[in-house]
Amino acid sequence: MAEKMLRYDFTNVRAEAVGAAGLGAEDWAAAESYLGRVYAQAQAARSSWGFTKLPYRDGEADALIALANELASQCDNFVVIGIGGSALGAIALHSSCNPPFYNLMPRESRGNRPRLFIPDNIDPVLISNLLATLDPARTIVNVVAKSGSTAETMANFLVVQAWLQRAVGSAWTKHVVITTDPEKGALRALARERGLRALEIPPDVGGRFSVLTPVGLLPAAVEGIEIKALLRGARDMLERCGGSEWRHDPAFMNAAIHYLYDVRKQIRIHVMMPYAQGLRDVADWFRQLWAESLGKRVNRRGEVVQCGPTPVNALGATDQHSQVQLYVEGPVDKLFTFIHVDQFSVQTSIPAGFSDDPAFSYLSGQSLNKLLHAEEFATRAALTKAGRPHVAIALPAINPYYVGQLLMFLELQTAYAGELYDINAFDQPGVEQGKIFTYALMGRAGYDAARAELKGMELSRPDCII
Amino acid sequence: MAEKMLRYDFTNVRAEAVGAAGLGAEDWAAAESYLGRVYAQAQAARSSWGFTKLPYRDGEADALIALANELASQCDNFVVIGIGGSALGAIALHSSCNPPFYNLMPRESRGNRPRLFIPDNIDPVLISNLLATLDPARTIVNVVAKSGSTAETMANFLVVQAWLQRAVGSAWTKHVVITTDPEKGALRALARERGLRALEIPPDVGGRFSVLTPVGLLPAAVEGIEIKALLRGARDMLERCGGSEWRHDPAFMNAAIHYLYDVRKQIRIHVMMPYAQGLRDVADWFRQLWAESLGKRVNRRGEVVQCGPTPVNALGATDQHSQVQLYVEGPVDKLFTFIHVDQFSVQTSIPAGFSDDPAFSYLSGQSLNKLLHAEEFATRAALTKAGRPHVAIALPAINPYYVGQLLMFLELQTAYAGELYDINAFDQPGVEQGKIFTYALMGRAGYDAARAELKGMELSRPDCII
Repeated sequence: MAEKMLRYDFTNVRAEAVGAAGLGAEDWAAAESYLGRVYAQAQAARSSWGFTKLPYRDGEADALIALANELASQCDNFVVIGIGGSALGAIALHSSCNPPFYNLMPRESRGNRPRLFIPDNIDPVLISNLLATLDPARTIVNVVAKSGSTAETMANFLVVQAWLQRAVGSAWTKHVVITTDPEKGALRALARERGLRALEIPPDVGGRFSVLTPVGLLPAAVEGIEIKALLRGARDMLERCGGSEWRHDPAFMNAAIHYLYDVRKQIRIHVMMPYAQGLRDVADWFRQLWAESLGKRVNRRGEVVQCGPTPVNALGATDQHSQVQLYVEGPVDKLFTFIHVDQFSVQTSIPAGFSDDPAFSYLSGQSLNKLLHAEEFATRAALTKAGRPHVAIALPAINPYYVGQLLMFLELQTAYAGELYDINAFDQPGVEQGKIFTYALMGRAGYDAARAELKGMELSRPDCII
Repeated sequence: MAEKMLRYDFTNVRAEAVGAAGLGAEDWAAAESYLGRVYAQAQAARSSWGFTKLPYRDGEADALIALANELASQCDNFVVIGIGGSALGAIALHSSCNPPFYNLMPRESRGNRPRLFIPDNIDPVLISNLLATLDPARTIVNVVAKSGSTAETMANFLVVQAWLQRAVGSAWTKHVVITTDPEKGALRALARERGLRALEIPPDVGGRFSVLTPVGLLPAAVEGIEIKALLRGARDMLERCGGSEWRHDPAFMNAAIHYLYDVRKQIRIHVMMPYAQGLRDVADWFRQLWAESLGKRVNRRGEVVQCGPTPVNALGATDQHSQVQLYVEGPVDKLFTFIHVDQFSVQTSIPAGFSDDPAFSYLSGQSLNKLLHAEEFATRAALTKAGRPHVAIALPAINPYYVGQLLMFLELQTAYAGELYDINAFDQPGVEQGKIFTYALMGRAGYDAARAELKGMELSRPDCII
């Protein structure tokens, strides 16, 4: 297939399409000068956004592929210990660019690559069962934390390190690869001290924008995913977006539509619904990107705004049987993003049936591909008919090149949206309080004040328990 | 562990706890007589709700266990072909009551039970890869559809039936078990005609309330999950809820709190956040139950209401690194439900460290269990401090008995909420339009009008594509 660009379609946010919930000429007229001004600012700022530099680091990709090939040959299991932005990108690349049931396939069907595990939680049952399933002597662990001090990652690393050491003794250091800040943090210090292999996350790239750093690229390359195609797709999308006219930049247009729905229509629930099992985890990756970047208490002028749309994941066709009843008949409080795939990597025919019943016969001789497309367009048409707005992003196919385009499209859209909301899209001050309370509850030195505050809080009153 | 009841805790919806977003005395006073009246109605109606009869069908459970044991001995893979309510319950039971990485464990570690696959989509890549992974001669397929005509299920069944027949010829009929309506529909007719084994879904139990029918129970029993403990838990919860005083019925109290947040506070995003990997899919099951039951255009008096809160799934501690920034700093538009687990099936110690760095040392010698609890309480405290309301449901442990309690608690809460909204919680008229458009696009006879309507809709205009 010749390489193309993703298509972005906003037909169904027009007032002509969806009535009262549509964006009309007056909405665009009211916003026009603001959009133009912010777009110009964003074009000037863009080159300073760390994530926009990543697709040009091709030399690094070669070194990463060499390392990944070496690691792949040394293990049967590759385990990523990381959480949030240190896990979601690798998970999204894994499930979009490699086949489902990957870990159940024989090694030769996986291109002679190891299995991949990304246990992004500290649930004791999850971690203990994972370790019981794996042979430590045949396992390499990639510990990923930008700060080098994330509590969940440190805790899981301590558990996994002891498990490795019990099995292979001092050779445990050969089973660990660190991905962290080039200079700072406990993981970097440890890597130096113990001589661990270590990769760098550029300091100007935050966790949720780090999928195209070694955070996402090393696990992907270990699995044999073509990371240079991924980077090329991201680069092509970067170069496609921009220019002098905001209307012609699809990532800005999508940011603007989402922003206008929030501020002009009070529609703040953003549902992303790919019609492709392989893109489910891309929607989950985007859920962090969108929520953590835009959910902010204060804007850049220090005014309290408490802004931020709520991203919601859905999956077609599955959630037609779970959420579409609400989407079609419930409150008009959602803007939908459908992700369409033109061509899947396989064509699965529906055989001429063993039953003449009309519930079967209209399907016989068609394909799952056609049915999935029919269900997508039927759902989109039903939503439009019910006056619910949606946009659509179309991928020619699911492969590293187009996934690279999609990830960069969504990252740009998010950074643009940060400009429109006039907030800092790159920090996350709201998670600090929870970290402080966690340290207090774990007895960490220096957190007595937080411990005292928690004691006074009456978080669970006996007269409120039934 | 002695058997206990789940605990329900609403400390953190009080105005004293969370300020403006709290329910104050005036909120309760304004609603009191309405809540009392609806509760009395609901108690009268309750015995007619089909799902409340299911926990008393013990005799059926014995027969189901016998069949499940027979099936388990005959196969290495048990595949459920179903979607929505025909899949989500079985998935929730699987991941809550059996260990993670179940399908990767050796058969003897699974109690000599087959692997379980529930591909609840028609994605061609998903289905073709699944079939490529399995040996048809060692696979039994459970086809589940209440109506007996769900398009996705019929299509997947056609694909799987041909795959079985290619491998085992006419013996394919021994590899299929049908679960459907006792009388009606294409699957029932097929089961009769071909002599397929077939189980019944009671006609008065809808798909999303069917987890305690053979829809959920057969796959669970095939995996060796103690379905009688599950039913006993559901029965104990049914009997715990009810009585003359609505304040003492935790399921009604939770329904009332969610309802009041919607109508008095315009807080309509309901986030369910279990702090347990094994309950993630219970939240996903609940997401269908809550959305499809309450998302309704008209109430029982025929008035257009377009009601329905939006359920959102989250997972602790994972989503602290994805969604909590938005939850703490974004708009005050969410009510949170935390699901707490007192005791996990394993205790995973965090070893005394290989590093003296303070980022590690406060964790050394503690446990993942303690850290997960600390993170949960820290997040709840941070939300309360930020004026965001939450309720909590606590399970003594995760096992079939307590999962049975939890499922029944949530089903009752949903049916009660239907009474409070005065809507029919048991239908789903909003999905009909999408089905009609799907039939039209698939060329099914009798859908010419819908085909013509779609042609006129301009769902994708070239001038709206960038």
